[in-house]
Amino acid sequence: MRYFPLVFLSEYRSQVFFLLRWLLLSTLIGLLAGTASAGFLAALAWATDWRELHPWIIWWLPAGGLLIGLMYHYLAGRAEKGNNLILDEIHQPQDTLPLRMVPLVLLGTVLTHLFGGSAGREGTAVQMGGTLADQLMRPLHLHRRERKLLLIAGVSAGFASIFGTPLAGAVFGLEVFLIGRLRYDAILPSFLAAISADYVTRWWGLYLPDIHGLGHTHYPHMVAPTASVLGLLSAAVAGMAFGLAGRAFASATHLVSGFYRKLIAYPPLRPVVGGAVVALLVWALGTTRYIGLGVPVIVESFSVQLPAYAFALKILLTALTLGASFKGGEVTPLFFVGATLGNALALLLPLPLPLLAGMGFVAVFAGAANTPLACTLMGLELFGAEGGLYIGLACVVSYLFSGHQGIYSAQIVGESKHGLWSRQTGKHLREL
Amino acid sequence: MRYFPLVFLSEYRSQVFFLLRWLLLSTLIGLLAGTASAGFLAALAWATDWRELHPWIIWWLPAGGLLIGLMYHYLAGRAEKGNNLILDEIHQPQDTLPLRMVPLVLLGTVLTHLFGGSAGREGTAVQMGGTLADQLMRPLHLHRRERKLLLIAGVSAGFASIFGTPLAGAVFGLEVFLIGRLRYDAILPSFLAAISADYVTRWWGLYLPDIHGLGHTHYPHMVAPTASVLGLLSAAVAGMAFGLAGRAFASATHLVSGFYRKLIAYPPLRPVVGGAVVALLVWALGTTRYIGLGVPVIVESFSVQLPAYAFALKILLTALTLGASFKGGEVTPLFFVGATLGNALALLLPLPLPLLAGMGFVAVFAGAANTPLACTLMGLELFGAEGGLYIGLACVVSYLFSGHQGIYSAQIVGESKHGLWSRQTGKHLREL
Repeated sequence: MRYFPLVFLSEYRSQVFFLLRWLLLSTLIGLLAGTASAGFLAALAWATDWRELHPWIIWWLPAGGLLIGLMYHYLAGRAEKGNNLILDEIHQPQDTLPLRMVPLVLLGTVLTHLFGGSAGREGTAVQMGGTLADQLMRPLHLHRRERKLLLIAGVSAGFASIFGTPLAGAVFGLEVFLIGRLRYDAILPSFLAAISADYVTRWWGLYLPDIHGLGHTHYPHMVAPTASVLGLLSAAVAGMAFGLAGRAFASATHLVSGFYRKLIAYPPLRPVVGGAVVALLVWALGTTRYIGLGVPVIVESFSVQLPAYAFALKILLTALTLGASFKGGEVTPLFFVGATLGNALALLLPLPLPLLAGMGFVAVFAGAANTPLACTLMGLELFGAEGGLYIGLACVVSYLFSGHQGIYSAQIVGESKHGLWSRQTGKHLREL
Repeated sequence: MRYFPLVFLSEYRSQVFFLLRWLLLSTLIGLLAGTASAGFLAALAWATDWRELHPWIIWWLPAGGLLIGLMYHYLAGRAEKGNNLILDEIHQPQDTLPLRMVPLVLLGTVLTHLFGGSAGREGTAVQMGGTLADQLMRPLHLHRRERKLLLIAGVSAGFASIFGTPLAGAVFGLEVFLIGRLRYDAILPSFLAAISADYVTRWWGLYLPDIHGLGHTHYPHMVAPTASVLGLLSAAVAGMAFGLAGRAFASATHLVSGFYRKLIAYPPLRPVVGGAVVALLVWALGTTRYIGLGVPVIVESFSVQLPAYAFALKILLTALTLGASFKGGEVTPLFFVGATLGNALALLLPLPLPLLAGMGFVAVFAGAANTPLACTLMGLELFGAEGGLYIGLACVVSYLFSGHQGIYSAQIVGESKHGLWSRQTGKHLREL
């Protein structure tokens, strides 16, 4: 222990310097990522509204797919790997993330939603956040070892600002690249960037109140029952179902993607065929409730009993959309899958419907992304702390039951989830 | 990826087995630790009430100290190391924790509080939880590699049940033994044990409603202001102050302890002299507000402006009590220090007094115990999610500013908090 005042002072000089440095850097990251998220949210709201008013556009989904396919095939280069490129750069830094990733993923996602694919938005926000943050390296002459912190902060900023959940965003950035381990070296950058990006996105909403879509969805703050043995056992059972759903989602997406890869050699044609399949399926279903982000159905699932098969349809449509190289993200569809599966489980389990919907909302995502702590925090941020016990338990059990699978194939197994799989430690999910 | 159904099934058989096994084990741990915490809470309430009615007893603090000193010197053996023994056993398993740790620390803590020392309760709960959990190893023929999970689950159970914060307790067990890293191998055991222990303690409160002290303190759910640049910067400044206070607390306790060790060769005499010092100081102060747990002052600090020096007095009295080998814990005094320091900072910073008190409550503890995520969750569980942004930011900055110091000298630096200190990675705090 050091009691000597001079050492103490010099030590704190560098701490204060580190804090001020990251206050500045995180403000910059927040300005960039938060503004990008705000623009993206507005564009998404526009595309969704337009599609709902002109449902015939879904027949043009193959054409939209061709556009996205050509764009990515001829312009993207490394950017085609999307989220996984960012995770790979966090693990093994190679080269600055290409700035063209931002317009490509933004345009690709808006087109996907405009033409009626089933997709999300966090992938887009995370890619924009990470890429924009990475651009600060050169002009600011940052040190190479700071790049990892910068990328994690960018991921946190994108996630936090797109969902309006700063704490979950901060922990998501720390939690997502390794399964089963969390390292704290980037804890300050990721918290600061998440908070400032969320602030900037909200600021745009206040500054431009006439622009639709800039606000975040409000979910009901739920009143959970007091803990009971039966209730907690039910939460564990629900957690198992949520984990299996998360695994099914990840497997289905990888399966469809592998299938199209094998079947169609020329990449730009994959989303054309994939778009036709989705369009036919939507026509056969006779409803547009399962495409796009699906926010209205997510909100309904907290109050109305929905068809028990809703979650399966959303898995199918999202796997067919994203597996065919449409753009967006997995997380909002995972919210949909979880909320509707929780809704269906209310038929079988003695827990209130809104609580089960909220538990599923975050827990299926916890299983599919292997991020149980970020998802627990997200549950508390969105639904209030009252149901925290049930939410936390569902997220942890789901995490355990999704196995060594997930939506991010560049994740590395840092700590095996189970002794049986300890040989897989240190490997990328894509190698398993 | 494995799609082959038989592998899938056999994989899940072992997952379900793992879940059921830990449901049972955690229920047992919860029954033991939760019941121990309930009895301890009732005994503490009795001792506190008795002392408040008979304030002359504080002059007998040296005699109480002698009793505790003799008890520990002649009966404790390894149990004397307290919390640090449990952390050491998690890092490097040697031998089953001695069961006598439970009555020793329980009696030692109740005596400390009865005679008017300034101390806490989490150390006692954690030691009881960890020790009771460890006793399950032999009768249940558990495997050696399960012992670490058992100990972490016991720590989580003790912490969760004593404060009524299951999520914070679960993450505390995972977070406390390594600085800067969190491993998920014990995530299911620690969540299950924390939830079941908390449930059991609450059950005792409902079952025996006439017994005073079985309920947890209720703190106000706070309404935080909407985020503003000035507010967030203030939270960062407050976080620095909280971290320095946490460091000062840890240093002062270690300093007093080292001083008594050097000065008095015969250990049972240390708390005699230490008790006399505390008694004289309390007499000089003319108030009993700064001894014991201090829960009334903590509650006041959310609503009334308190003297700005309150936090310093509590650090001094607690260091003099615990440094002289009285028993209890550090966390409730840290809540006191944080809440009163936050209260004082309301004079200087443009944030509401209840918010600053709540931020300090958890953030000083985050700095002193190096557990920022558990403390953020605790803030959400106790004060609601509305102030989460401010609470999280304060905890993270405080964690960073407490340096490689802390109240648990058996913690190992898993990841340096700052590049400057990277040579300290892998070392115990006591070696630094």
